[in-house]
Amino acid sequence: MQKKEFLYEGKAKRVYRTDDPACYIVEYKDTTTAFDGLKKEDLVNKGVLNNSIASLFFAMLHNEGIPTHFVKKLSEREMLVRALQIIPIEVIVRNVAAGSLAKRLGLTEGTPLNSTVLELNLKNDALHDPMLNQYHVQTLGLASAQELARMEELSLRTNELLQSYLKKRQIILVDFKLEFGRFKGEILLGDEISPDTCRFWDAGSGEKLDKDRFRRDLGGVTDAYAEVLRRLLEVK
Amino acid sequence: MQKKEFLYEGKAKRVYRTDDPACYIVEYKDTTTAFDGLKKEDLVNKGVLNNSIASLFFAMLHNEGIPTHFVKKLSEREMLVRALQIIPIEVIVRNVAAGSLAKRLGLTEGTPLNSTVLELNLKNDALHDPMLNQYHVQTLGLASAQELARMEELSLRTNELLQSYLKKRQIILVDFKLEFGRFKGEILLGDEISPDTCRFWDAGSGEKLDKDRFRRDLGGVTDAYAEVLRRLLEVK
Repeated sequence: MQKKEFLYEGKAKRVYRTDDPACYIVEYKDTTTAFDGLKKEDLVNKGVLNNSIASLFFAMLHNEGIPTHFVKKLSEREMLVRALQIIPIEVIVRNVAAGSLAKRLGLTEGTPLNSTVLELNLKNDALHDPMLNQYHVQTLGLASAQELARMEELSLRTNELLQSYLKKRQIILVDFKLEFGRFKGEILLGDEISPDTCRFWDAGSGEKLDKDRFRRDLGGVTDAYAEVLRRLLEVK
Repeated sequence: MQKKEFLYEGKAKRVYRTDDPACYIVEYKDTTTAFDGLKKEDLVNKGVLNNSIASLFFAMLHNEGIPTHFVKKLSEREMLVRALQIIPIEVIVRNVAAGSLAKRLGLTEGTPLNSTVLELNLKNDALHDPMLNQYHVQTLGLASAQELARMEELSLRTNELLQSYLKKRQIILVDFKLEFGRFKGEILLGDEISPDTCRFWDAGSGEKLDKDRFRRDLGGVTDAYAEVLRRLLEVK
């Protein structure tokens, strides 16, 4: 697989074409951002950790029947993926009240939710990723009703799989963000699953093992990410 | 029907018990508020106009098969209604981009939407009425899935009926807010339908005939409300 021209730079990743038009190479950067990019720092090795973590998650999900864009890990920072046509919607899956949900609904951070909450946000930094519902998705033509139903179904199933996988590793899956794309008429899970895109709390101490350490200046960001990777690598 | 003790004061209405526990009297005030009550003014006769306008809308909707709390108009400012157990959700129905939707999604005000948009907001001034989706409604226990589906169905049907009724009167129904409540195991349309809770634009000139005249300091607020009432009273 040959890396070809640079295609797109996101806040935490770069995407390149390959000699196969159906595949891209994703390169994980050390750049870490928060608050729509207002806070930004390079954290040494963060990209390496996230590439490993996301590869393990995608492989597990693939084995459990979730269609993902992941093909294989290529190198420390590189992942080979299917060339998705990205749907510009972030799906947020929440099991415990935290972050913007806690603030928005006046819930105490850490309160378990009575039922899983899915939220849809438009991927648009200039508009600060506004929340959408199925009617907005339809009127904006972002996805068909069928595509959206499939995204929600895959999100809920991914949540069950990740929750149970992480519970064995003493990690509470508080919430996480997913992105999806179209590939040969199918909806595939795309983007990444990592401490950049999830809230992970240690099941014993409640210690944060995710990007909230960066957002909230708690320090030890990459140490926490390395701890997540260490637990994922344990055979369970 | 005897008016009994005062029960509740809202921003634009007062509610009283009656000697029938299944009925309340709603009294329409002249008080007009915007921006979560930050802007507030008494507009002479506004309550009288809104009571008349809402009574006409409710009677029309009732005749078309929408179950509402409206029983009858009692006096200039008073309406007899069923004693609903209010569900603390505002349903916003939108046909044209305006107000918060236009701002939130970066749409030009006045752009017709490709399909009707429903939005759900939690009725909570302290939290600034945050937007909800069906998962929030479920986890907060605000309404059952069945109740929510019924509220959405009634909202869409109400939109069709109001749109066609207003079109004959040269008024564009841009968007409006509905509230619902439980009454003897049924979901009824509650609250009011008036220029306080709808955006009405004159079909010819585009002139605003609603509370945006107050929000945006355009003047002629009650004149516009009176014009809406005049058109509703024309036989069509």
